[in-house]
Amino acid sequence: MIGVIRVFTTEIEEILEQHRKIISKSYGVPTINKCIPDQPLGIFNVETEEMAVPKIVALGKRLEQEGCKALTIICAADPAIEELRKEVAIPVIGAGSAAALTALALGQPVGVLGITDTPPPVIENLLGNLLVGYLRPEGVTNTTDLLTPTGRTRGLEAVKQLLNQGAKVIVFACTGFSTIGLADLLRQELDVPIIDGVEAEGLFASTLYKQQASNA
Amino acid sequence: MIGVIRVFTTEIEEILEQHRKIISKSYGVPTINKCIPDQPLGIFNVETEEMAVPKIVALGKRLEQEGCKALTIICAADPAIEELRKEVAIPVIGAGSAAALTALALGQPVGVLGITDTPPPVIENLLGNLLVGYLRPEGVTNTTDLLTPTGRTRGLEAVKQLLNQGAKVIVFACTGFSTIGLADLLRQELDVPIIDGVEAEGLFASTLYKQQASNA
Repeated sequence: MIGVIRVFTTEIEEILEQHRKIISKSYGVPTINKCIPDQPLGIFNVETEEMAVPKIVALGKRLEQEGCKALTIICAADPAIEELRKEVAIPVIGAGSAAALTALALGQPVGVLGITDTPPPVIENLLGNLLVGYLRPEGVTNTTDLLTPTGRTRGLEAVKQLLNQGAKVIVFACTGFSTIGLADLLRQELDVPIIDGVEAEGLFASTLYKQQASNA
Repeated sequence: MIGVIRVFTTEIEEILEQHRKIISKSYGVPTINKCIPDQPLGIFNVETEEMAVPKIVALGKRLEQEGCKALTIICAADPAIEELRKEVAIPVIGAGSAAALTALALGQPVGVLGITDTPPPVIENLLGNLLVGYLRPEGVTNTTDLLTPTGRTRGLEAVKQLLNQGAKVIVFACTGFSTIGLADLLRQELDVPIIDGVEAEGLFASTLYKQQASNA
């Protein structure tokens, strides 16, 4: 089983389940998800990230105890990833590093789509010189904005702009893009690799899981 | 279709097909393989690498023309990868970078197993501080040595030594280990992630292929 860590608080089952379902559906692996307590607005600045770190670590340890063979953190900023890796014996994968590393495997100029002023440091640092552009879809400053009817249209417009800036690969720097299914929309419209962070971390985690399962 | 580039010359169908079959079997994707001409001993020093580069580029271009949607170079040194990426419009994946990047996604200390005196530069550079040990199985100096009855045993011994040196993840720095099925042997014996370069490059290539195919 793969443990899926949501870094905000919700009691709405449908919202909680979204990313776990993407990983299970894409790769045919069993997943379980849990969210951290008392942060309905998730992580949106340094303070809220610091608040979340011990909660993510505690949740990851619990998921390991419950039998998970790999953990995924559903956030492109990879919050608490180093801290959690020190506390568990199973692999811990983050959406930001997984997406950036997948882009590096292609070796082409990368355009990054996010919802913050600048890309998450983990993505910026890993991509280095391959990062040729970063954009936030117009009018989008949080994941809720993505859920409006124009969220996907604005996302497509921003990606077209990134391609004009020389990008040959697109990386999502927000797991909210997974929620609105932006990757599939872009793949239908454009002929460049689209790297969705949740799909990327699910890819690494599911591969490890399958290798272990087939040799257990 | 995924194009599989073998960087040595053989007319023996069974040998030519080995790595293509691993990728097709592991990920359920169609593959085609071709080898470069006039290098039966492959790449084993700077001179033979320089000789191979234009041949790999020419072969990659041909595979693109024949309809391949992604290319994989079957060698952990990623020969000609940058040159080929400049000449084709489809993604080019190398065994060395794919394996190292997969290890980086796990973020744990890495032990590298190879057949040369030092790890391929692409792997060493990508892993940076995460590289905690490099070993060559005793008595192995070329891929032919791997095919002897003791090849797998010596591989297992070397990997155990890497784990004693602090490695928590193992990366193969030679695609000859794929030929002898070392990854599955290690997975049966040891409880750490084993990253096989051919599997890793196949993972990236097949994911791109599937995404494109499902939206074509």
